[in-house]
Amino acid sequence: MTEYVERLKQQIDFLMEIDKLKQVFRRTKLTDNSRYENTAEHSWHLAMFAMMLCEHANEADLNVMRVVRMVLIHDIVEIDAGDTFIYDMVGQEDKAEREQAAAYRIFGLLPEDQQEEFHQLWEEFEERETSEALFAASLDRLHPLLHNYYTEGAAWKEHGITSQQVLERNEHIAEGSEILWEFAQELIRSSVAKGYLAP
Amino acid sequence: MTEYVERLKQQIDFLMEIDKLKQVFRRTKLTDNSRYENTAEHSWHLAMFAMMLCEHANEADLNVMRVVRMVLIHDIVEIDAGDTFIYDMVGQEDKAEREQAAAYRIFGLLPEDQQEEFHQLWEEFEERETSEALFAASLDRLHPLLHNYYTEGAAWKEHGITSQQVLERNEHIAEGSEILWEFAQELIRSSVAKGYLAP
Repeated sequence: MTEYVERLKQQIDFLMEIDKLKQVFRRTKLTDNSRYENTAEHSWHLAMFAMMLCEHANEADLNVMRVVRMVLIHDIVEIDAGDTFIYDMVGQEDKAEREQAAAYRIFGLLPEDQQEEFHQLWEEFEERETSEALFAASLDRLHPLLHNYYTEGAAWKEHGITSQQVLERNEHIAEGSEILWEFAQELIRSSVAKGYLAP
Repeated sequence: MTEYVERLKQQIDFLMEIDKLKQVFRRTKLTDNSRYENTAEHSWHLAMFAMMLCEHANEADLNVMRVVRMVLIHDIVEIDAGDTFIYDMVGQEDKAEREQAAAYRIFGLLPEDQQEEFHQLWEEFEERETSEALFAASLDRLHPLLHNYYTEGAAWKEHGITSQQVLERNEHIAEGSEILWEFAQELIRSSVAKGYLAP
């Protein structure tokens, strides 16, 4: 009795702590351009992407639910480390270190077995080696491309991003899904043609 | 080739349509009481609840990932039907009808096989008969209780809710998890003692 009460208390503390992810804002706008997106709702959206698009992964035997679990937790570290814009090369330098410390603190609130489980899942995402992590990373890149396209390039224009930068920073979509990379390149070409993105 | 391009287009249309869930607001506040919670971030939070708390379900052989899938999509109908406050007895009357129409329109954007799959998953959640649906419903009730507790009863006070109402509308938590219902009752008692909730 006492043991599971203690476990439950730790789990609830963790779940209430991660409520803060709803207050971490990203560089991407909602598709109606009304405001910046926060990381909690982004994580929900990515999980929906995983459920709907898994058939397009390069790996036919993908464990979809592992991808869903991964994308649900992949950005929790931003509670401490903040969102690092992918075109911010200075921020990228110490990103790994800041996020590692955050993972230890935040997952550290959980009972030990769950700490390990979720820390491993997060590291799998970061290392981008398994089929599931590669596909999760593809979705994580496709998502802001789509939001930029739907907002006529709002975040790209705001930060003066060029199509060359977008192509370079997103080409690893192909490692998780050739089909989605094909689709993404078409989006990028179309964005340039429509004036959403600088050539 | 043409066939999968058409499928992908439908899937992307659906994924961009559900971005609107980030603009549907609930009666519950974030734990820091700064603003109302939207349904997309609520759905993410519930999926995290499912992953962290599944060991407390009454059913030992629970399919956790089915619970996660269910909570991720359970409120998508609110894009058309809006959020119906559980203590709003008038709104509850035609809720089922409004939500059914929404489900047909929104899931209807997907390719036919996925339409069926996700419509069924949503109906399973609504019918609250399987172990997975019962546990998902428990989490969906526990979540606002916790947010109310952390905000010193913000939504309860705003709508003049009493502990009797809270007990009655939440007792079905026990059908999914006796342990979480035990915990919830303790939260309710403590909320009354602290003046967060009217006796």
